[in-house]
This record gives sequence, C-alpha cells and structure tokens, in this order.
Amino acid sequence: MARTIQEVLDLIIAAVPGAPQAGSVDVLKSGDPAWEVTGIVTTFTASMDVLRQAVELGANLVITHEPTYYDHYDSDWLAGDPVVQAKRAFIEEHKLAIFRFHDYWHMHEPDGIITGMVRVLGWEAYKQEDEWMVVVIPGMTVGKLAASLKEKLALPIARVMGEPEQPCERIGLIVGAMPGDFQIKAFERWHLDAIICGETAEWQTCEYVRDANALGFNKALLIAGHAKSEEEGMHYLVEWLQPKVPELSITYIAVGDPVSLL
Amino acid sequence: MARTIQEVLDLIIAAVPGAPQAGSVDVLKSGDPAWEVTGIVTTFTASMDVLRQAVELGANLVITHEPTYYDHYDSDWLAGDPVVQAKRAFIEEHKLAIFRFHDYWHMHEPDGIITGMVRVLGWEAYKQEDEWMVVVIPGMTVGKLAASLKEKLALPIARVMGEPEQPCERIGLIVGAMPGDFQIKAFERWHLDAIICGETAEWQTCEYVRDANALGFNKALLIAGHAKSEEEGMHYLVEWLQPKVPELSITYIAVGDPVSLL
Repeated sequence: MARTIQEVLDLIIAAVPGAPQAGSVDVLKSGDPAWEVTGIVTTFTASMDVLRQAVELGANLVITHEPTYYDHYDSDWLAGDPVVQAKRAFIEEHKLAIFRFHDYWHMHEPDGIITGMVRVLGWEAYKQEDEWMVVVIPGMTVGKLAASLKEKLALPIARVMGEPEQPCERIGLIVGAMPGDFQIKAFERWHLDAIICGETAEWQTCEYVRDANALGFNKALLIAGHAKSEEEGMHYLVEWLQPKVPELSITYIAVGDPVSLL
Repeated sequence: MARTIQEVLDLIIAAVPGAPQAGSVDVLKSGDPAWEVTGIVTTFTASMDVLRQAVELGANLVITHEPTYYDHYDSDWLAGDPVVQAKRAFIEEHKLAIFRFHDYWHMHEPDGIITGMVRVLGWEAYKQEDEWMVVVIPGMTVGKLAASLKEKLALPIARVMGEPEQPCERIGLIVGAMPGDFQIKAFERWHLDAIICGETAEWQTCEYVRDANALGFNKALLIAGHAKSEEEGMHYLVEWLQPKVPELSITYIAVGDPVSLL
C-alpha cells in the first residue's frame, strides 16, 4: 500500500490531542506532501550525517525533533550562509522530505520525548501520576544518578552540581533547552532535589544551585546535553509509529552529543 | 582618605566612554551609596561563598559581573524563593553593597573582560586592531587550542567540536552566554575558524558547526564555560581600579566553574 508524505503526517498529527496548532514549528520543512514515502528515518536532528544515511537507506521522509537550519522557525536568517546553501542543495538534490516533530511529540499524552528517556533509564516504576516531568526514586543520590546517566545514556562523563553522597529522590526531567528561569522555578514548583536537564543557563540555573547548596538547601543539577536528553524520545517514536504504517521501513538514527572531550 | 560607595562608582563610571546609560543593569543592587567603603571585592558572580569571603575580609563593596538573583535585571521574579530570601537576608545583615559591572566593563575601551582573558592566555601579540573579539594565531590547531585553554584557564577537560589536527588560526572570543544566532553569524562576519565561547546553544551553534564540518568547512567550537570565559576580566579589574583608589584594599575572588565532572 503506497502512502504519500501527507498521509503519514496526517496519521501522526491525528494521534496527538490538540494538534495541529496554528504557529507550530511542526511542519514540512522540505519536499512535496504528494510524494510517495519510500522509507522513514527518525532522529533528534536532521544533520548532514543523518541526511546522508537516509539517502543510503533509500528513505525520503526524515522526522526530526530539532530544526534543520539552526533556528526555531527555520526562517531565512542564514539564507546567504554557505553551510545552509550546501545543506539545502543536498536536500533538494536527493528529494528529501523533512518533517519537524517537536511540539506535537511533547504534546502527546504521555510526552513522547520524556517517555523515551524514562524507558531507556528504566524508570517506569518511578513515574508520578500527576507530575509527568517528575520521577521519585527512593535512596537515590547524586553519585548514583550520575552513574546511571553515564551508563544508560552512554555519556563519557557526567556534568554535575551537588556532592556525590547528596540525596536526590525527587528528580525533574527538564529535557531539551528550557530557559534558566523555568529550570529555577521547577525546583520549587515540583519540590525537586535534582534536575536532569539537556542544556542549562549557567549564569542562572547553576548560580542558583550553587547558592542553594551553600545555604544548606539540597539541590542538584545533572547536565546531560541537549541531544542526549531528548534523542531516546525519537528512538521510541519508531515503536509508536510502526503500527500506524506497518508496510513502511522506519529507522532511528542516533546523532549523539556534538561535543567531544579533549 | 575616606570614600563613599557612590564616589567609587562615580570614578568607575567616569572612566567608561558612553556610561552611564539609561536601562543598564550596572546599578547598585544592595546597600547605601552614602556608606564609607571599607574594602572592595571583585568577582564574576556575587555567590554566597564570595559574599562570605567579603565579610571575612571586612570589604563592604562587592563588584560583580553577573546578577545577584539569577536574572538579568535582578527583578523580583523569585521574591518568594527561600534561596533568594536567605541570600538577601545575609546581604542586609552584613551591610554589603553590591554593584554590577557588566555592560560598562564590556563597553570600556578595550573591553575589560576580553582584555583579562587575552592577558591570562598570553595572546596580546595576536590581537587584531579593528576586530577586538578576534585573535589570529599562526599555526594554531584545535588540539593545541584545547591544550592552551586547559592549561591557562585551569580546565579539567576541554569541551570541543572539531578534530585535534584541524587548523584554526582565526579565533573569535565570544565570551559569556551570547545567543546561538550571534555565535553562528560570528563565523561568517569575522571569517573565523574557531570560536571560544562561554556558554553555547547546542541545538543551534553546535548543530551548525557539526554540519559545517560534515560539509568540509573548517569550523571549530571550544566551550570554556561562562565563568571561566569571563572571570579573568574581573581579576584584571583589580589592576585597573587600584590606581583610582590607592588607599583601598581590592581583592579578586575566583568562583570557578560551578559544574563538576563525575
């Protein structure tokens, strides 16, 4: 059964309560909705490496969580940039359709990104019914939490605030790159001992946590990196989407943390 | 010769072309301008630890680059937060005057923060006359640059994008936490091979650099951390300020990177 790009996107959007929304960034970034889908790739970000692998796989629909051209709306702010021009030419030459699945995947019930992260961390039993960004893990400490993240997310090192023996049973999963003020307020809002974030705002969140601990409050921060904090949600998308399009091949491509340690 | 807080601030502001500016964050955050100065502390951020050291030193004027209450304007967005309340109580109890020296220190000619960083890195000879955020270092590579940052800024590890042998002679010093779009455009604007930043926006700058390198462009990013990228500028402030107030004791207090590695 042949399906068009639009038909696949319609199936996805129909499964998200409240979608579609006007002004959402979750639109087709390239390609023609009338094309027949030859295969699907899911990924955290449609990097050049991911696009090349999609071409090798013969997949013409790339479903990405993050933008293609480095800003939230993929506007033409960098239109004259040689990197953007070369990437756009590759996408056009290889007739790749790119769909951003960001807002709607977070709006899904439960949040698809958080679900993927909780699954890879093996924390389903610790989820809270009314607080979907919170897990409560009895006996957890900063050191054990850091070890867990390193093992399950394959981090070479854990970037941490808080002493290794510091208890942190109530943990907020503030994935992605939420603003510093949101991260700071999350501590009080959800009575958190620790936040696992993707990116942070060092001059805001980190300084708040530094002062909090200096004043005897029990606060910790674990910085997983943006890609590592969210990409398992795009991995989980394969399992979620496959039953809706059983005849199509869906491949998850990991991108990993872009930053190396020297 | 006794001096008031206001007299010291007037001396500082008078030495900055264009200062004072309406709407600047560089104002007195606590204390009374009429107090007599008992000693001065300079620092990247007026953390609890810095404030306690200031009290021990008997210094009642803290000159900080970053905010005291975790947002740019130190507004009352966190007024009910127990960390903020405890910090404010300490500041009031110990009669500490806190002056933020951010905009004006960057407006100083040359930029006081960049000057401090260039000095600690030993790069005075590589400065560019018309491009004050750029240094050009013949024969430099990403690996050598990372080693230099680790040594001179005492970083336990260098967070890097780019291969160690990748050449990077034209280097932008984009300290602090500049927005991702500014960092990305800086590559083209100044024809940079590499950017040394404080904080970055991984989903923007890092993905741009990842794609740029995948497409054969020569771009590198070295992430020093916000505090490490700017605090030597507050160290240099001691030398700059001392001749203006020769009778006062001025002490620089390093805060270091708030994040530990596990």
